[in-house]
Amino acid sequence: MNRDADIALIQHLADAAGAVIRPWFRSSLAIETKDDRSPVTLADQAAETEIRRLLAVHRPDDGIIGEEHEGTNVGAARIWVIDPIDGTRAFISGRPLFGTLIALLEDGVPVLGIIDQCIIGDRWLGAAGRPTTHNDRPVTTRRGGALAAARIGTTSPQAFEAEDFTAFERVRTAALDTLYGGDCHNYGLVASGHLDAVVEASLKLHDWAALVPVIEGAGGCVTDWAGRSLTMASDGRVIAAGDARLAGEIAATIGR
Amino acid sequence: MNRDADIALIQHLADAAGAVIRPWFRSSLAIETKDDRSPVTLADQAAETEIRRLLAVHRPDDGIIGEEHEGTNVGAARIWVIDPIDGTRAFISGRPLFGTLIALLEDGVPVLGIIDQCIIGDRWLGAAGRPTTHNDRPVTTRRGGALAAARIGTTSPQAFEAEDFTAFERVRTAALDTLYGGDCHNYGLVASGHLDAVVEASLKLHDWAALVPVIEGAGGCVTDWAGRSLTMASDGRVIAAGDARLAGEIAATIGR
Repeated sequence: MNRDADIALIQHLADAAGAVIRPWFRSSLAIETKDDRSPVTLADQAAETEIRRLLAVHRPDDGIIGEEHEGTNVGAARIWVIDPIDGTRAFISGRPLFGTLIALLEDGVPVLGIIDQCIIGDRWLGAAGRPTTHNDRPVTTRRGGALAAARIGTTSPQAFEAEDFTAFERVRTAALDTLYGGDCHNYGLVASGHLDAVVEASLKLHDWAALVPVIEGAGGCVTDWAGRSLTMASDGRVIAAGDARLAGEIAATIGR
Repeated sequence: MNRDADIALIQHLADAAGAVIRPWFRSSLAIETKDDRSPVTLADQAAETEIRRLLAVHRPDDGIIGEEHEGTNVGAARIWVIDPIDGTRAFISGRPLFGTLIALLEDGVPVLGIIDQCIIGDRWLGAAGRPTTHNDRPVTTRRGGALAAARIGTTSPQAFEAEDFTAFERVRTAALDTLYGGDCHNYGLVASGHLDAVVEASLKLHDWAALVPVIEGAGGCVTDWAGRSLTMASDGRVIAAGDARLAGEIAATIGR
C-alpha cells in the first residue's frame, strides 16, 4: 500500500467521521455514562462504526483498534487506531475542541496520524518522512526555548494520579504558563508552534498514536515521562514538545 | 437612549473588535508580558482602542471602563465595560475560545452584555428583560438538576487562592464532572444549556459584567460565593448556574 493512498484514505475517514459527528454537536443527545464517569455519546459510537465500515471496504486486511469497539485483526502488520471523539467531556459541554484521532501503525510504529476538529475546521496531518500540515499548509513547532519560557498545555489536573500530579506540578511551576483543557487539540497547537509542550498522563494508545507523526513531522518530539519513544507498551505518560531539548528538560524536571 | 439602539451598538462594537482581532490570531505577534504573567497582546490593546473610538462617536456622554486603558467619565450613570480579549492565554496559544466581553451598566447594574468569539462565530447577547440569544436565536439554561448531576466549568485551578481552592475543590468533587479552560466561553455554554455552572474567583468587573445579562436572560443565576447578586463592590468570586437552586447549592457547598 503506498503512502499517498493511505494519506488520501485517512482524510476520507476524518471527513466521514466529521459528517457523522457534526449533527450531534450541541444537540440534545443521549449520554451514556460509564462507571468511570467518562461520558460516551452516541456520536462517538456512530463515528467509529462509520470509520470501521470504510476501513472494511478499503483496507479489509488491516487491523483496527478503536476506543468504542473490540479490536479486529489486531495481529496484522498494519493497524488503524481510532478515537472518534477525543475529548467527549468538551463535546458534551458544547465546546468545539474535541477531535477525531486516527493513526496508522506499521509494525507497531505510528507512521500516519490525523487530528481533526470538525466544527471549527482544524485538521493536522502527519506522515512519517513528510512535513506535517495544518489545513494543507506545512507547519513547524516553536523551537529552542527553555522550560522557563515555555507555554504548556494539559487537559485536566484530575488526569494525574497522586505522584504523577506532584511531578506535573514541578513542570507547571517551572514553565512560564499553563493552559488547561483542550484535549488532542493542544497537540495540534504544538505542531503549529502556538504552544511549546503538552504534558499528560493516563493516555491510551488511541489517545496518543495519531499525535506522534503530527508532532514529529512538524519538528517536535514525543516521549514518555522517562524520555523514551512511545511504544505499544508505554504507560500512557506523554510529553510532546516543540523540540527534543525541551522534551528532555521536561523529562528531567519530572525526574523519573 | 433606547434599548434597541444600545443592542444594535453593542453588536457593532463586537463586530469591530472581531475585525481588529482576527488578523492577529495565530499570527506571530509581539507579546508583552506583565509582571503578573498575564499576557497582553497588541490585539487586545488595538481592539479596546477601536471600541473606545466608536463609543466616543456614538455615545460621547457615557463612561467607559476597560481592561487596557484608564477609565473615562466613570461617574456617568451609563458606563460601558470592555474586556477586548478575555482569555489572552488561550488567544496567544492559538485556541479559539477567548472572547470579547462588552457590557453596559446603568447605575451600576449590568443591563446589556455580549460574549463574542470572533473566530468560531459564537455570540451570546443578553439584555435585561429580554431572552438571551446565541447567534440571534433564543437560548435557555438547563434547569432543575442537583450539583451531583452537574457538569461545571472553570478556567484554571491557579485562579483560586489557597482557601478559595479548598472551597472550589468541595464543589468540584460534589459535581458530576469538571471541564477546565474556556474563559468567558464557558458562561455562554451555561446560557445555552450545555454546561450547568461555572465557578470562578479573581474576576474583575470587566470579566463578569457582560455575563450577568447573558446568563440571567437565559433563565440562569449569577451570584458571588455567598449567594448575593454581584455589584461593583463584589470580590471577584462568581457562581453562574442554570438556575437559582443550583447556584444556591454551590454557594452552600462553598460554605462562606
